[in-house]
Amino acid sequence: MSLLEKTIQSITPRDSVARKAARERIRRLTMPPGALGKICDLAVELAGITGRMPPPVARKMVVVMAGDHGVVDEGVSASTREVTRQMVANFITGGAGVNVLARLNGAEVVVADVGMADRDEDLVRSGKLIGINVMKGTRNMRREPAMSREQAIKAIEAGIEIAERFVDTVDVFGAGEMGIGNTTPATAIVSILTGRPVEGLCGKGAGLRPEGVKRKAGIIEESIALHKPDPSDPLDVLAKVGGLEIGAIAGLILGAAARRKPVLVDGFISTAGAMIAKALAPFVRDHFILAHASGEPGHPAMREWIGRDPLLHLDMRLGEGTGAALAMNLVEAAARILSEMATFEGAGVHEGDLA
Amino acid sequence: MSLLEKTIQSITPRDSVARKAARERIRRLTMPPGALGKICDLAVELAGITGRMPPPVARKMVVVMAGDHGVVDEGVSASTREVTRQMVANFITGGAGVNVLARLNGAEVVVADVGMADRDEDLVRSGKLIGINVMKGTRNMRREPAMSREQAIKAIEAGIEIAERFVDTVDVFGAGEMGIGNTTPATAIVSILTGRPVEGLCGKGAGLRPEGVKRKAGIIEESIALHKPDPSDPLDVLAKVGGLEIGAIAGLILGAAARRKPVLVDGFISTAGAMIAKALAPFVRDHFILAHASGEPGHPAMREWIGRDPLLHLDMRLGEGTGAALAMNLVEAAARILSEMATFEGAGVHEGDLA
Repeated sequence: MSLLEKTIQSITPRDSVARKAARERIRRLTMPPGALGKICDLAVELAGITGRMPPPVARKMVVVMAGDHGVVDEGVSASTREVTRQMVANFITGGAGVNVLARLNGAEVVVADVGMADRDEDLVRSGKLIGINVMKGTRNMRREPAMSREQAIKAIEAGIEIAERFVDTVDVFGAGEMGIGNTTPATAIVSILTGRPVEGLCGKGAGLRPEGVKRKAGIIEESIALHKPDPSDPLDVLAKVGGLEIGAIAGLILGAAARRKPVLVDGFISTAGAMIAKALAPFVRDHFILAHASGEPGHPAMREWIGRDPLLHLDMRLGEGTGAALAMNLVEAAARILSEMATFEGAGVHEGDLA
Repeated sequence: MSLLEKTIQSITPRDSVARKAARERIRRLTMPPGALGKICDLAVELAGITGRMPPPVARKMVVVMAGDHGVVDEGVSASTREVTRQMVANFITGGAGVNVLARLNGAEVVVADVGMADRDEDLVRSGKLIGINVMKGTRNMRREPAMSREQAIKAIEAGIEIAERFVDTVDVFGAGEMGIGNTTPATAIVSILTGRPVEGLCGKGAGLRPEGVKRKAGIIEESIALHKPDPSDPLDVLAKVGGLEIGAIAGLILGAAARRKPVLVDGFISTAGAMIAKALAPFVRDHFILAHASGEPGHPAMREWIGRDPLLHLDMRLGEGTGAALAMNLVEAAARILSEMATFEGAGVHEGDLA
């Protein structure tokens, strides 16, 4: 059995006993029933994912999966491909948005090359960049499949390996990414899995003008028409029009879920990874949390398909894992409510009578 | 000139030079233009409020204003009046929701009695409870004005005094409250200032059943019909159908604005205070930040009247300052983006070309 199959088989439903214990605890806390809204819901979820009450959340890590995209040759991005490598250096130096927000919320940032076209080997040798390069960037999906089915599986397994590498020393993962051009495969994935037309899902990414967005939508439509990915086969979708970092994010989510560790899923690209993960293993839906509502127009369709609401609504569309890093604070808040807040009995506060 | 008049006169427009410097800095940061969405907007706002770039935000304080409400005699709350005192003790012990969230985000919590019916004098003597009690709870507004115009002014001035007491050692304030029954005056205020009918603004507060909400709406309507507060005179509105803690929150906002310190305004009750502040001094709108979208049905009308969007959307309706405490993390994030994130030039990253 492959690592991917084994991992999928180890994912179990959420723990209903721990969820019930969390709900019961919340009912006794000094506040009107459920008055902390989605923070209460999140607390119950974390208990269900981890199977522990209170759920441990102290050790946080955002994993940034990096990969390149052949389709950038078609002019689908406002940035140039070399920016993937430059931004990876920025992550490692600690100067990017994800670093600032992760530092604020006590999360470590690790960066993995799962499909960069070009990387600094010194960074891999020194251990600053995890190097599980499946291929040097996808192929141009407008002309040929982005990768083979085997490469798609390897990309997912790279994410599983990374989850396994850290799972014993991390309580909560964040899933983020870097890859110039990657809103293009993410848009293709949401279009295929939801059955919705590309137009209406396709956005400006790193800053395309309206004409550029239109051209990008056309390229995605042509790629889908050329390869006809099977919507019921997530590996086929990932291989033909996906991305290596998107596969690795799916793998991180699956690997963490198999070990009952929550994953905060960042924005548009990372949610495409979560869609692939859920298509492979429906149970996994209960093991990840959507960190924020991305500003990309295709994100609402992703959330609807997954059936989950995001925590933050801040019109962010940077990616990297910035939304996941920011939402770590809400995860910590939810866990601390369970462990630190006084009960009616403990604080000598009268419970409300429903009048 | 009174303290209130003097304070209002000292409030100046936001600092356009600092705002411009923040925008210019953001443009150079290693991300597509404005890709951190509302975090970028918040960074610009903080610069404009404080007049400093980067804006200082390290020292945070949530002020919980406590007061009681005569209208509780009409059965408008699912809780009993003694819970105000019990919850104040809970704040001081550190076990309430606001304590947990403030601790998480590095904010101090201070509690002030500005209108409690009953307080523990030992807490005041020991300095754990700020005691500027204007009156021992408002009168029952269904039968007589909640307070006199003089008492309304004193409640606001209590808030100004508290702002002045801490303003030299605090960078960012949060405004919160405790007062059983206080969604009733808050609903009256939003109805009068926006001109909208009470029905549709009135909610369950700490947990009323639908019949209770209907009865509460009727009591608010009767109170407004009895006193006919002048919508163009915020002191008249506050006096006749307001609350002492709501006045004190208005004062905290005005006092902080006069000294260019940002205030994170919590939920439904605190936003009623912000409405009174803005009605007294229109400029003040640029000096406070709405922390979150309260679950109370009247909150959207408040936000529309003020003309500001909230940061968090978590269906919270606990009050105390919990939303303000949680949003402190976003304030810190916005400030750190300005001070810690690398520029394109500094990190050697190519800026995107709009394609």
